[in-house]
Amino acid sequence: MREWLDGYEERTWQTTESGTVRYALIGLGWWTIDVALPAIESSDLGEVSVLVSSSTEKAARLADENDVARGIGYDEFHDGAASDEYDAVYVGTPNAYHLEYVESAAELDKAVLCEKPMEATVDRAETMVERCEAADVPLMIAYRMQTDPAVQRARELIADGFVGDPVSVYGHNSQPLLEMIPDPDQWRLDPDLSGYGTSVMDLGIYSINTARYLLRREPVSVQSEMASTHEAFADVADERASSLFVFEDDVQMISTASQNAHEDTHLKITGTEGQIELRPAFHGECSLHCSRGDVSVTVEHDSFDAEREMEEEFDYFADRVLGDEEIYPDGRHGLQDMRIIEALHESAERGEPVALE
Amino acid sequence: MREWLDGYEERTWQTTESGTVRYALIGLGWWTIDVALPAIESSDLGEVSVLVSSSTEKAARLADENDVARGIGYDEFHDGAASDEYDAVYVGTPNAYHLEYVESAAELDKAVLCEKPMEATVDRAETMVERCEAADVPLMIAYRMQTDPAVQRARELIADGFVGDPVSVYGHNSQPLLEMIPDPDQWRLDPDLSGYGTSVMDLGIYSINTARYLLRREPVSVQSEMASTHEAFADVADERASSLFVFEDDVQMISTASQNAHEDTHLKITGTEGQIELRPAFHGECSLHCSRGDVSVTVEHDSFDAEREMEEEFDYFADRVLGDEEIYPDGRHGLQDMRIIEALHESAERGEPVALE
Repeated sequence: MREWLDGYEERTWQTTESGTVRYALIGLGWWTIDVALPAIESSDLGEVSVLVSSSTEKAARLADENDVARGIGYDEFHDGAASDEYDAVYVGTPNAYHLEYVESAAELDKAVLCEKPMEATVDRAETMVERCEAADVPLMIAYRMQTDPAVQRARELIADGFVGDPVSVYGHNSQPLLEMIPDPDQWRLDPDLSGYGTSVMDLGIYSINTARYLLRREPVSVQSEMASTHEAFADVADERASSLFVFEDDVQMISTASQNAHEDTHLKITGTEGQIELRPAFHGECSLHCSRGDVSVTVEHDSFDAEREMEEEFDYFADRVLGDEEIYPDGRHGLQDMRIIEALHESAERGEPVALE
Repeated sequence: MREWLDGYEERTWQTTESGTVRYALIGLGWWTIDVALPAIESSDLGEVSVLVSSSTEKAARLADENDVARGIGYDEFHDGAASDEYDAVYVGTPNAYHLEYVESAAELDKAVLCEKPMEATVDRAETMVERCEAADVPLMIAYRMQTDPAVQRARELIADGFVGDPVSVYGHNSQPLLEMIPDPDQWRLDPDLSGYGTSVMDLGIYSINTARYLLRREPVSVQSEMASTHEAFADVADERASSLFVFEDDVQMISTASQNAHEDTHLKITGTEGQIELRPAFHGECSLHCSRGDVSVTVEHDSFDAEREMEEEFDYFADRVLGDEEIYPDGRHGLQDMRIIEALHESAERGEPVALE
């Protein structure tokens, strides 16, 4: 098992060894510039050719600073400027702006890699899926955990019965948002931009999506409690949220998320025979802990960080765009997370469990 | 902080240095004989003078084997046999039998240390409290985590603001019961003997009670999902259970428990500023992990085991019986756990949150 775990960073999904996807990056916050851009530059199958921002000036300046050929404004993008200079877009704007850029990209026949959560609401996420399907452009949602080698190993172990029958999942994702970004007016605290809320949309989604991916099962009902006490969180329901999910086959999951708490990320799957744990789970340096009977193995994953994780994600996306294999975390996959998050908010508001189709 | 944590095994609760409480042990399963009995013998303030079992013969044989002065049958106990040879009873029978022994003990004016959960139902637990109050005998429920030094340190740290405001709690307690006791007809799987069910009554209660103790807050509403799939669990609702609690001050808690899963015990309190974790949490060798900002401290607790933990508990009980300080985990404290567990089962059955008074 030790040996198998050490064959860790193999790309079991890879089908394409050559070719290049040229990206336009849309929404130039710190994540896009400091993590996504260098990740693409280090990737095998991608390069950044265009930056898109609010104004041509800002985009041109950032392009210059980051050694990218071209910078254009949002309006220019929508008008099709430089559209022969990129093959795909990466959308990293606040949630409620995703749709408009994806719509333009679909009209321009560009492949789309859109950050999670897909959009601010289920309705807008549905529209996104429909637009991309009508235009027949690939749409992937940027669930970087799914191409993290630790998560992929965990998924194979679970499918091979390492934990026996899965019994329960624990997911946790918390961070002190106001220490990280000391601005009470940031978009993550504005429901017009973030959507249903902030802690589940931005953090809880990692536990939910990674559990769906690891278990190969979908939740059938959810319940949740949410509360906001800090004044910066006055406009959102979920400064903190606790949720309870029933998945197919009576697998149970519990999770907590908070944008106003000590940082911790943790995912644990307990089965009848064993346990698999990711901790830290969601910040790139993901460690895998496996126990069964009296045996325990830990695989540290120090060489990985968020940038390296994004590199895997971009190469997976490029592999799918250049080849003809299906995208796993596609628009309909992301849409399901939106429905789950909407149901969690509905449950917290109504004070009762909500069934999912 | 390191130094403070190393002053670990101080008994901050101790008020009595001398005196002896003589115990009658009732219900001679492996826990009573292999853990409780040696724990009392190693304790400062206790000794075992009587063993009580189904028949005089069995009790006499076990007394002989374990170097205890006297063995009597259940009927003899109820009739007051040997009642001048012990000062207190320890009740370690299946849950549904606790009440009858406590009733007799109260009539005989003996102090009572009763295993948790107190009884099979809230009604019977209420009767237990009333009988002891009417007879004016001390009643303590055997929550051994409360006198574990790691848990006591955690409680002080939380009160001192180490984690900031508590945000959420995660509790987990699972074990493979049928591997530990390979008998599908054991009492823990029989609701007539165990009460509301098995996983929450026997395992989940650790998370619930320790969280109440650490937070110094009570849950105000609960919701739960329970499922049984293995045939040995056909008569109980909760082969596995997942629960969600809202405590006072909007502190949230999630927990999982299962009698048919890989062994793991874990309690984690996340606050706005830090985190305190007990893992392993509930099997005696409890380790304490404290994080705040970039600082992390772990206190291993290897010298402790279940017997040592019970020794603390028995000396605490004896200290209260010999002195005049109040018992913290008294009958009314234990009764609250019974109400919480009843509410969890009600929630799982009705499919909605249940409020607690």
